[in-house]
Amino acid sequence: MQRRTPGVRFNADGKAEVVLWSPSAQKVEIILLNDHKKIALNGVDFGYWELTTTAIKPGGCYKFMLDNDKELPDPASLSQPDGVHGHSQTIDLKQFNWTDGNWQNPPLDDYLIYELHTGTFSTDGTFKGIEEHLDHLLQLGITAIELMPVAQFPGGRNWGYDGVYPFAVQNSYGGAEGLMQLVNTCHNHGLAVILDVVYNHLGPEGNYFGEYGPYFTSKYCTPWGPALNFDDTWCDAVRNYFIENALMWFRDFHIDALRLDAVHAIKDFSPTHLLREMKQRANELMPETDRTHYLITEVDLNDNRFIDTLDNHGYGMDAQWIDEFHHALRVTAGGDRNGYYEDFNGIAHLAKAYEDAYVYDGQFSPTRKRYFGSSAAGFPGRQFVVFSQNHDQVGNRMLGERSSQLFSFEMQKLMAGAVLVAPFVPLLFMGEEWAAQTPFQYFVSHTEPALVEAVRKGRKAEFTAFHAEGETPDPQSEGTFNRSKLSWDELNSAHSAVMFKYYQKLIYLRKKLTTLHILNREKLKVTFSEDNKTLLLQR
Amino acid sequence: MQRRTPGVRFNADGKAEVVLWSPSAQKVEIILLNDHKKIALNGVDFGYWELTTTAIKPGGCYKFMLDNDKELPDPASLSQPDGVHGHSQTIDLKQFNWTDGNWQNPPLDDYLIYELHTGTFSTDGTFKGIEEHLDHLLQLGITAIELMPVAQFPGGRNWGYDGVYPFAVQNSYGGAEGLMQLVNTCHNHGLAVILDVVYNHLGPEGNYFGEYGPYFTSKYCTPWGPALNFDDTWCDAVRNYFIENALMWFRDFHIDALRLDAVHAIKDFSPTHLLREMKQRANELMPETDRTHYLITEVDLNDNRFIDTLDNHGYGMDAQWIDEFHHALRVTAGGDRNGYYEDFNGIAHLAKAYEDAYVYDGQFSPTRKRYFGSSAAGFPGRQFVVFSQNHDQVGNRMLGERSSQLFSFEMQKLMAGAVLVAPFVPLLFMGEEWAAQTPFQYFVSHTEPALVEAVRKGRKAEFTAFHAEGETPDPQSEGTFNRSKLSWDELNSAHSAVMFKYYQKLIYLRKKLTTLHILNREKLKVTFSEDNKTLLLQR
Repeated sequence: MQRRTPGVRFNADGKAEVVLWSPSAQKVEIILLNDHKKIALNGVDFGYWELTTTAIKPGGCYKFMLDNDKELPDPASLSQPDGVHGHSQTIDLKQFNWTDGNWQNPPLDDYLIYELHTGTFSTDGTFKGIEEHLDHLLQLGITAIELMPVAQFPGGRNWGYDGVYPFAVQNSYGGAEGLMQLVNTCHNHGLAVILDVVYNHLGPEGNYFGEYGPYFTSKYCTPWGPALNFDDTWCDAVRNYFIENALMWFRDFHIDALRLDAVHAIKDFSPTHLLREMKQRANELMPETDRTHYLITEVDLNDNRFIDTLDNHGYGMDAQWIDEFHHALRVTAGGDRNGYYEDFNGIAHLAKAYEDAYVYDGQFSPTRKRYFGSSAAGFPGRQFVVFSQNHDQVGNRMLGERSSQLFSFEMQKLMAGAVLVAPFVPLLFMGEEWAAQTPFQYFVSHTEPALVEAVRKGRKAEFTAFHAEGETPDPQSEGTFNRSKLSWDELNSAHSAVMFKYYQKLIYLRKKLTTLHILNREKLKVTFSEDNKTLLLQR
Repeated sequence: MQRRTPGVRFNADGKAEVVLWSPSAQKVEIILLNDHKKIALNGVDFGYWELTTTAIKPGGCYKFMLDNDKELPDPASLSQPDGVHGHSQTIDLKQFNWTDGNWQNPPLDDYLIYELHTGTFSTDGTFKGIEEHLDHLLQLGITAIELMPVAQFPGGRNWGYDGVYPFAVQNSYGGAEGLMQLVNTCHNHGLAVILDVVYNHLGPEGNYFGEYGPYFTSKYCTPWGPALNFDDTWCDAVRNYFIENALMWFRDFHIDALRLDAVHAIKDFSPTHLLREMKQRANELMPETDRTHYLITEVDLNDNRFIDTLDNHGYGMDAQWIDEFHHALRVTAGGDRNGYYEDFNGIAHLAKAYEDAYVYDGQFSPTRKRYFGSSAAGFPGRQFVVFSQNHDQVGNRMLGERSSQLFSFEMQKLMAGAVLVAPFVPLLFMGEEWAAQTPFQYFVSHTEPALVEAVRKGRKAEFTAFHAEGETPDPQSEGTFNRSKLSWDELNSAHSAVMFKYYQKLIYLRKKLTTLHILNREKLKVTFSEDNKTLLLQR
């Protein structure tokens, strides 16, 4: 009874099944905008409202009316053609003509991940735009693309972490069908698709969740305001909402893996943590899809409970990001040493990252001012994702400089090598394979003036110490977004071509040599010299 | 290095070892009030300040001076002779002349707990007052007393949950020496002593912790304001402070068990939860004290991670309170059904509590509006503490009525029987053994007028729905406190004498009959009839 798929879905008979959770409402109607018609939903158990009807067709536009008063979009909308404040539109997810029947998700050991932002990867800024560059990615040799979040966000420019419709694919990217098309094409070209999803908060604009029910709890505070309600009164439907979201991507969009954003901000003291329940449900789904699906977390706790097996009281996550490898590598390369980089001493820590995955597995962390982390001994290399840059590490700099702006050409090569010979799953950030010169800056396109101002101010304040180095780019300006688009012409330059060939070769070697692609950490040996600045990795 | 005992302790040479944690201070001095002298402490590592000196003697009065500016009591003071705002006083804890060398803490299976509040148990309201009634307790047959919190609180009247000096024993109760004397006497009379300690928050008045360092975090919100910092920046010293507190009671006060108040409000997402670390440290201490010491939690999560073994990824707590048994019993007895009692249907739930310890081990809880709890199968009966009343269940009623005011004499007997034949550890609340007629109301003695007003208002607001039944007693009034004192003369009445004999006999039988005192849940069989209002317990 708790396992309801929220939103509007079409059943085998073509009837629409409408499911809404709103325990506070006394009356709920669905407004069919095409037909100027209202139909009451039936209040059922656990605060749910339901309706099965032939009155709603695929493509139909609708809103919900709560208590004769509030007219609101569907929190589980699959499509928001007019953006976050507009009406919702139904989609029959089963209509897509999949041709990826032969596709099988490779083992994580074989993943070579390429992270990209749909809006800035291509000139178009759409899923179609990605497809147009698929040959480039295939030539490069990566085996999986990772899409930054695509849930509907305010306006047309956003990294994706301000999404407020977790079930709706951003309209300006091409919507649900566009994403399905992309996944289908990728699978037919042997590429896996990872989707970045945000289950730790919901964006500030177009966020109507509070009107429907207790989606939030004041028990915990997050950097983004009140926390999502995963363990307080009424939490079951909220948990189910996000779990159903994860299952939808696997089942209906053929997504191979989810990258769960910042799960340390998912506050849940229930006996069964949300992620553990999500994994249990995903395990139940797999016989149905007849495919493997992975859950990969971004988490900065160095706590094995996330990646430990369900049998061993863990949450069963298949893998997790390792920011510490990145930090150690950047410091070794001569990069910044302020902020969280203060915890990293360079080559000795890089050696530790190779050997132990976590740099901090029980030592005192100067920036956290506490003993931090636990040992990852015994966990295989395929459970750790490493990189020399990613959207955060680039974009969270004031000017959004990539490594290409900060390190010498040779050092960039060395960093790429460090990642691609690691006994972990490597991740590249779009454009690094040709040392792209464009920045990746922070951009938004909010429509509420007060929010725009708050974001601008926040961004400026974040970089007060750096203002001598220039002006903080205006996050709301279209220019900031356009500047952040990859410039594919660069690939024609000799400089970029050399780097591209270098990456290509490294990837080729990683795939070809057993030593490199078997992610066994047991035979690993690392020796290094601080004096000579050398590190010898034996695998 | 992290394992420092905060405060002032005297070493084997009689020198005072001063340890203070204040990472924000630039300069720290100890002010010796008897000698009008100031001595600088040495800033060492991890934000600690230390000094070893002969200038401070046992009984010496002192404060700390931070940055030439703030003169404050010691957060780890062992004695506050002038209350929470006054100076601290040193004690040499090793000076007490213990004569309990033959005492051994019995197994938890043998515990028959008697919860008491020092201030209202005797006319005196002191530890000495408890000793004077020891014969009564011995005649009753209980095997352990449980003292409500004794950490120094504002004024002389408080339940104890507003304590702000976890290391200092309330001066008006008799201070550290009085408590040691009581424990020594109890041990010599075969009684174990449990101490209620509060590690989930610190009281609102006399709370100078924030001046010393980041004892609190804004990551989590508790009903009492910002949460104690157990997993945020700088948390190690805060964790250590409370762990050292627990160890002090075991080592220096010979306390047999701690009752950890409301541990669900201890918010800690570290790889090693505070309670797990506390248990690890307690295990290390036991060979030193050559005694067993128990950690018993109050927790309302029905989550076995608290009582599961360290080996099985648990926190290793020896036992936990089971409020649900109480709630099911009260509803079965015909008591209130509002508030959290709504979750309980009476006899069927009482049967479930007997069988499964948790009533909610996966069902939907109507008041929590969520599926709640996990199964306690396999955990022995000694890990669960049950009662038909306790300080909270009595005192959190507007008028603080005991069962004696709410249920018939025969029903009280039935409830006592229900607890004392349970396959769990029974707990009585002071006075219930003679159906005491005095209430146990909520009382405080704050000195800050705004706080007094806030507590008064809060208490009134809490019982808005009940005002028809009378006035909320004024928590600040001395009358409320005095009304809550046990009236020992009652014992002379025939009525009380009958009840006392009844309890005595029940306890005698529980101790005598193997079936009753072996807390094996495996052979337990419960049958019941809603129609006949009967429940048959076979053990």
